[in-house]
Amino acid sequence: MTEFPHTINIDVFPMSGYDIGEKEPILKKDTSKSQRVIRLAKKFEIEGIRRSVEAILVVHKHNFPHILIFSDTEKNYFLPGGRLRKDEDEVEGLKRKLQTKLHPDLLQHDQIEWEVSEQIAVWWRPNFEDTVFPYIPPHITKPKEVITQYLVQLPKTCSLSVPENYQMLAIPFFEFYDNAHRWGSRLESLPRNLSRIKFNLKD
Amino acid sequence: MTEFPHTINIDVFPMSGYDIGEKEPILKKDTSKSQRVIRLAKKFEIEGIRRSVEAILVVHKHNFPHILIFSDTEKNYFLPGGRLRKDEDEVEGLKRKLQTKLHPDLLQHDQIEWEVSEQIAVWWRPNFEDTVFPYIPPHITKPKEVITQYLVQLPKTCSLSVPENYQMLAIPFFEFYDNAHRWGSRLESLPRNLSRIKFNLKD
Repeated sequence: MTEFPHTINIDVFPMSGYDIGEKEPILKKDTSKSQRVIRLAKKFEIEGIRRSVEAILVVHKHNFPHILIFSDTEKNYFLPGGRLRKDEDEVEGLKRKLQTKLHPDLLQHDQIEWEVSEQIAVWWRPNFEDTVFPYIPPHITKPKEVITQYLVQLPKTCSLSVPENYQMLAIPFFEFYDNAHRWGSRLESLPRNLSRIKFNLKD
Repeated sequence: MTEFPHTINIDVFPMSGYDIGEKEPILKKDTSKSQRVIRLAKKFEIEGIRRSVEAILVVHKHNFPHILIFSDTEKNYFLPGGRLRKDEDEVEGLKRKLQTKLHPDLLQHDQIEWEVSEQIAVWWRPNFEDTVFPYIPPHITKPKEVITQYLVQLPKTCSLSVPENYQMLAIPFFEFYDNAHRWGSRLESLPRNLSRIKFNLKD
């Protein structure tokens, strides 16, 4: 029998228990990369470092844990999450983001208790570009963004609503690993960053 | 000012506070790769999965955190650690390994209090080869080894003794990142796996 040395255990449930619907689209704020850089640079001057949060939601399919990610119409892949407001707490802000990006209409569905658990990784963006690092690189005194990833425990079953211009995908751990070219460094790193967690696959 | 979202803080001290001496060499058990495979396969039949532990010791130099690693005469790079005995607890076993691989002679030095803290990552070896994964790959029912990595807090200052056939190196985080070719996957992953920890650089 395989002995597990992990100190942290998380229950994960079958993908089939989640009912995936649609909700209003999430519109992009920028029409080009350069417009985005200009907007972020202006904001940085006023507000300082941008703080973002991302949720790692794990389910299982075919007896293997999978991570729920979004893809947009340009085939970008990313975790549910977003930017925090000024002085907003990370955990509260992440719950707010999950509410806007994944929660169905409250008139027809009960409120999901988003259970934000372990902090998994922290990534730093040294300038207004795509590249991020899991540390503040030497000689960078003013990183432009810090992105914190949290494991979020889903209830056994619930309804989720995906913005209609996004797709939700469930990707097995082994697809991410060692494939930064496809997924980008944050998604690619998830299997290593989650290796200290034992996922109990429940029925 | 940069705001840090990390939930875990660890104090690290200057490399200059550690006095590095020598101790008796650690002899290799195998003279070839095939001999090693045969020895491990025999042992696996009797004892089942091999359980190993590794220590991540962090210091600072030039205002940047560095990780202490060994290199051997064949330029293999690895963390201090080793195989657990049957039924041995991970934390106790890691302290025993640090004692044999890094502690100086107790007649001349006080016992270092090895403070084993956070579990950082868990790696699985599906067969008796070099490749390891941060999960049990699909279709692998009997992994051959599980390696658990822990952060170990060093005292502010102490003497360490390195086996005379090893070298001790202090490598900055950015050297490991994205360079699996040089360091192997376990060392290369350390910056990501440690990104959730805030290292406070102390004097």
